[in-house]
Amino acid sequence: MPDLVRGNAAIGQSGGPTAVINQSLVGVVEGLRSGLHASGHVSKILGMKHAVRGLTKGEFHDYTDTHQDVLDRLAFTPSAGLGSTRDKPDRAYCERILESCKKHDIRYFFYIGGNDSSDTCRIVREMAVASNYDMRCFHVPKTVDNDLMENDHTPGFPSAARFVAMACMADFMDNISLPGIKINVIMGRHAGFLTAASALARRFDRHLNPHVQGESTDGPQLIYLPEVPFETDRFLADVEAIYSKKGRCHIAVSEGICDASGTPIGATLIKGGQVDAHGNVQLSGSGALGDQLSDLIKAKLTPAGGKPPRVRADTFGYIQRCWPDTSPIDRLEARRSGQFAARLAMQGDLDGSVAIKRPGSGSRLWLGMDNGAPYVSEYQRVELSAVAAKTRHMPKEFIQGHNNVSREFVEYALPLVGSLPTFERM
Amino acid sequence: MPDLVRGNAAIGQSGGPTAVINQSLVGVVEGLRSGLHASGHVSKILGMKHAVRGLTKGEFHDYTDTHQDVLDRLAFTPSAGLGSTRDKPDRAYCERILESCKKHDIRYFFYIGGNDSSDTCRIVREMAVASNYDMRCFHVPKTVDNDLMENDHTPGFPSAARFVAMACMADFMDNISLPGIKINVIMGRHAGFLTAASALARRFDRHLNPHVQGESTDGPQLIYLPEVPFETDRFLADVEAIYSKKGRCHIAVSEGICDASGTPIGATLIKGGQVDAHGNVQLSGSGALGDQLSDLIKAKLTPAGGKPPRVRADTFGYIQRCWPDTSPIDRLEARRSGQFAARLAMQGDLDGSVAIKRPGSGSRLWLGMDNGAPYVSEYQRVELSAVAAKTRHMPKEFIQGHNNVSREFVEYALPLVGSLPTFERM
Repeated sequence: MPDLVRGNAAIGQSGGPTAVINQSLVGVVEGLRSGLHASGHVSKILGMKHAVRGLTKGEFHDYTDTHQDVLDRLAFTPSAGLGSTRDKPDRAYCERILESCKKHDIRYFFYIGGNDSSDTCRIVREMAVASNYDMRCFHVPKTVDNDLMENDHTPGFPSAARFVAMACMADFMDNISLPGIKINVIMGRHAGFLTAASALARRFDRHLNPHVQGESTDGPQLIYLPEVPFETDRFLADVEAIYSKKGRCHIAVSEGICDASGTPIGATLIKGGQVDAHGNVQLSGSGALGDQLSDLIKAKLTPAGGKPPRVRADTFGYIQRCWPDTSPIDRLEARRSGQFAARLAMQGDLDGSVAIKRPGSGSRLWLGMDNGAPYVSEYQRVELSAVAAKTRHMPKEFIQGHNNVSREFVEYALPLVGSLPTFERM
Repeated sequence: MPDLVRGNAAIGQSGGPTAVINQSLVGVVEGLRSGLHASGHVSKILGMKHAVRGLTKGEFHDYTDTHQDVLDRLAFTPSAGLGSTRDKPDRAYCERILESCKKHDIRYFFYIGGNDSSDTCRIVREMAVASNYDMRCFHVPKTVDNDLMENDHTPGFPSAARFVAMACMADFMDNISLPGIKINVIMGRHAGFLTAASALARRFDRHLNPHVQGESTDGPQLIYLPEVPFETDRFLADVEAIYSKKGRCHIAVSEGICDASGTPIGATLIKGGQVDAHGNVQLSGSGALGDQLSDLIKAKLTPAGGKPPRVRADTFGYIQRCWPDTSPIDRLEARRSGQFAARLAMQGDLDGSVAIKRPGSGSRLWLGMDNGAPYVSEYQRVELSAVAAKTRHMPKEFIQGHNNVSREFVEYALPLVGSLPTFERM
C-alpha cells in the first residue's frame, strides 16, 4: 500500500469551458469514490465553484454522495458545471488558495484546465511542499486549442474539431449554392489545430480519399494558421487566384493569425478590445477580424467602376467550444483522463499531469481508414513542469505551404472527431 | 383522368439555401417519377442549375433516371444541390425564362423557395397563359425565416430553429461558467420566428415546464424581434437590470431589429454593406451589429474609472441555415411538400403553392408534451398570389412584452425541432 494522506479532495475547472469538461469532472469524482473514498483516505469530494476563485472563499459543491444518474447527466452537459474563472493566480493569490485548502483539510487537489491551470497546480504544490503541508496536486488536461505539451491531443479538441468540420462542410455547400468569397474565423490564439480541422470538411480531397486525383476541390481551399506568418498581399493573391478560376472561394482563418513580427492581425483591428488577466487581447466574441478581411478583399477585387464581389465572413465564436453534439472518443477520453488522475493519487503519486498518448503515433497503423486497425489511446503521468505555462504548436509536418495542412494532419485528426455525414455532390 | 399536357418538367431551388431544401427537390423528383413520368406525360425531369439563371442558359441536371440511392443521399445533403440564385427576375428576365421553357418543351415548372420565388412562379405562369403556352407552375415552400403567408411553418425553419435552440442552450451554459454579457445575433430580416426559437433553449422555464415557478431563470433572458421597435435606451436598461442582479446576461437579437421608423439598426452600422438585387442591405456574414451592440453596452455599463464588463457577441451566420443535424419533422415535411407539388400537377391543377397546415393549431391538442397526442401536419394547395411577395410576421400572441416570446410561441415551435439534449444544472 502506498503512503497516503487522509483528508478531503477538491476539484476545479478553469479557463474556457469545453463540451466535455464535465466528463473529466465526473471522471475524477468516480475515480475518487471507487478509490480513495472507498479506502477511507478521502472523506469529502468537493467541487470548487468557479475554480480557485470559489476555493479561496470556501464555496464548494459536495459530490461525495451525488447519485450516479446525476453524475452521468452532468457528464453529458457542455460547459463547466462548477463554473470557471479566468483568474491567473499570482503568488499572493496562491497563498490564499493554500490557506483555504488547509482550512478545509484538502489533501488532494485536482485542477482541470489548460497550460495556465497546470501552472497554478505546480505553484500551489510547491508552496504546499515548502510549508510542509501534505497536499497532492494533479492536473487534468482540457483545451479546445489542443496546445498542451506532452499530449497527442487534449480533451475538448476532438469535439470542437468536429463542430468546425461539420460547420465547414455545410458552409462549403452553401458557398457552392450561392457562390462568393466566404471566410470562416476559427478559435485558436496560438495553435492552429482547430483551424486546421476545417480540412476535415473536404470530402473530395486526396488527403481523405486516395481515389481522388489532383488537388482538393472541396473547401476550404485556403487555411491560415497562427504558426505561419500572415502576409496580407499573399493572402489577397491566394484569394484572387481561386476566385478568378472558380467564381467562389472558401477560406478558414485562425483568430490568432499574426504578421511576421508576431503581432496578431486581429488585435490591431478590434476597437476597444479587452485584455484579460493573462495579458491576452480579446479575439473571440467579436466579428472584427472577419469583417476586416472582408473589407480588404472587397477593396482588392472590386473591378474599377464595377460591383464588389460577394464577400461574407462568419466568426464561429463560443458555440464551437460547447456544441452539444460531441465526439464519442472525446467524451470517453475526457472521462478517463479524470479517472486516471484519481488513480495516480490512489497509487501514491504526489503530483503530476495526465497526458493522452497514442501508441504508434507517427506511423499510420492506428488509422482505421487505411487498414481497419482500431483507434487506441492511453494515459500517462507526466511532470507538471513539462506542461505548465508552455504552448504546443502545430508541428511542421502538419503544415503544407503557407495556406494548407498536410495529409499527416488529416490522418492525425480524422479518427478523433467521430463519424461525419456523407453528402451527395452535384 | 384530368386534362394533362405532355412535355418535360423543370425544378429550381432559389434564394438562401436550407438544410432540407434538397429533400424538397428529391420529393418533386420522386412525385414526378411515380406520377406524371410513369403515366407518360412527363418525359424528362430537369433540374435548373442555379435556378432561373441556369434555366435561361439551358443549363440542366437530368434527374429522370437518377438512382434512388443517389436521390436519398442528395436529400440528406444540406444546401441547394442544384445551386441557387439571388436574381429577382423582372419582366424582361421572365420573358427569357418563358422562351427557354418553350425551347426545352418544359410544361411543368416547379420552384422551391420563399416569397420572391413564389412571385417569380406567379409571373411566369401569367406570361405563359398570356402567350397561350400550357405550362403549369407550382411553388414549394422553403425559408428558414418562416415568413410565408398561409403556412403554419415552412420547411427549413424547424432545422434552423433546432440549431438556434441548441446553440443558445450551450452558449447559456458557457455564460454561466464564465459570467458576462453575451449577445447572439440570429437570422431573420423581417420575421422574428428564428430569433424567437432561442426561447426553446430555456430548460428551466415555466413556458416549457409547468412545474417551474416564477420567471424564467435560463437564458436567453432577453429576446429582441424585428416585429417590436428596438429602442436603444430601453435595451440598455433591460441589460443593466439583469446584469446588476445576476452578474451575467444572455441576449438573443434578430439581425433585422428596426427602430420605430422601420430603419434596421444593423444596416446603418455596416460599413460598405452590400445591397442585393431585391434591394436588401446585407445583414448576415458580418459581425457588425453584434459588435456595435457590445460597444453600446460597454459604454453604458463601465463604471467611472472602472473596468468595462465582459461583453461578447456571436453572430450565428450561415451555419444556422445549413447545419447538417436537421429536425426529423423538417426532413419529412420538406420531402412531402415536394411530393405534394408533383401530385397537384398529376391531379390536373394548373398552378398553386403548397402550404403546410397544422390541424388544431390554436388548441394545444397537438402538443405531445401535454397529453401525448402526436404532432400532425397536412398539405394544401393555396393560390400563388396568396403567398407571392408577401411577408408573414410573428403573430401578436407569440410576442410577450418588448423583449420576450409567449408560451403560445413555445408550444408552437417545440414540436418542430426534434429532441433537445437534457442538461444537468448546477
